[in-house]
Amino acid sequence: MNISDRLAELGITLPQAMAPVANYLPVSIANNMVTVSGQLPAISGKVAVTGKLGASVSLEEGQHAARLCLINVLSQLQAALPSGLESITKVVRLGGFIACTPEFTQHAVVMNGASDLMVAVFGEIGRHARSTVGVPSLPLDAAVEVEGQFYIG
Amino acid sequence: MNISDRLAELGITLPQAMAPVANYLPVSIANNMVTVSGQLPAISGKVAVTGKLGASVSLEEGQHAARLCLINVLSQLQAALPSGLESITKVVRLGGFIACTPEFTQHAVVMNGASDLMVAVFGEIGRHARSTVGVPSLPLDAAVEVEGQFYIG
Amino acid sequence: MNISDRLAELGITLPQAMAPVANYLPVSIANNMVTVSGQLPAISGKVAVTGKLGASVSLEEGQHAARLCLINVLSQLQAALPSGLESITKVVRLGGFIACTPEFTQHAVVMNGASDLMVAVFGEIGRHARSTVGVPSLPLDAAVEVEGQFYIG
Repeated sequence: MNISDRLAELGITLPQAMAPVANYLPVSIANNMVTVSGQLPAISGKVAVTGKLGASVSLEEGQHAARLCLINVLSQLQAALPSGLESITKVVRLGGFIACTPEFTQHAVVMNGASDLMVAVFGEIGRHARSTVGVPSLPLDAAVEVEGQFYIG
Repeated sequence: MNISDRLAELGITLPQAMAPVANYLPVSIANNMVTVSGQLPAISGKVAVTGKLGASVSLEEGQHAARLCLINVLSQLQAALPSGLESITKVVRLGGFIACTPEFTQHAVVMNGASDLMVAVFGEIGRHARSTVGVPSLPLDAAVEVEGQFYIG
Repeated sequence: MNISDRLAELGITLPQAMAPVANYLPVSIANNMVTVSGQLPAISGKVAVTGKLGASVSLEEGQHAARLCLINVLSQLQAALPSGLESITKVVRLGGFIACTPEFTQHAVVMNGASDLMVAVFGEIGRHARSTVGVPSLPLDAAVEVEGQFYIG
């Protein structure tokens, strides 16, 4: 099954790729390594999940935010790569930044919203290394930010 | 001297590699670049140093935590690479995340607990680039998290 | 126009590369990928912009700090690469860490101080992927830390 079919089966329609909010690229390619800039949980250019885990944002809302970030990562790849998501031969790494209180401890549970979708979309090659950490705040008060690294060789 | 001898000389026995706490891989390889997921200061699957630098965790305890993270990075590599740690030709980068108060300023001193051990184990090829930053909290209340990038080409 | 001319035109004289504050390398190279360790907004070895965005550090001071970090990234590359900055064929990624309060939301505006200078110096190959996040504190109370990845193949 190809990636488009997998996405359809999951009920996911990739949105149009968002323009970066400043003077940088959403996707950068060198030596067959593809780096995707940190993506926010935005829908139609507006951050949809704001606030902090451990305060106004629930675990479920946090997971939803991580999933939205991942969908934006995928839409950036779809727009930037010659054969879109089919170009990817390995998902290398995800970095997850969780806006949260100093008392919060369930960062990994939140980030699963992104990792689980990645594996659902890509199968075995979607299994990736990952680092997840808390942050006091993110651009535009986003609750989660996700960056990614992929291989197309 | 090979890496096993070096570890023995340092009195370090690598623990069994911990399973990731969620749906991701501890080690990911693409294009001879090896990415190790963020590791916590865990012993036998339990985080051994919790809390924050600048509050309940002392500088010495923080350094010990960074060293424990690095030992877990090494045990993941030992388990994942065909010839274990001997496969590595260059330690590329360490990323250090230090759970701390907003007033804390000695992040670099804490992270030396990881960097010094890396150089002790690998010698010249163990010298690496590094970024060290503070975070308000980490998964499972860990005091430190360390991620790594290595080359096996 | 070469990079030296571009720097001269921008009125920038690269300072001598700072020694790392601990047991690691400022620049690490593997497989033609160049990783630059997190750089602080230091002048002559002393951090010039301390404190936090959203508190004692203004947006303009934060942008100035990001620009100083980038100048230190460039001076590390100039010192480490065989043909200095002319060796670089692609700026791959910048990572920006902004010391700030939990209420701060304009991380991207601060980080533009680094990204805008990068594009001014390198032109089209200077356009890069980027992740920008808040942190509660940085080494030596720096207001900003910037790390980078470059390609020389």
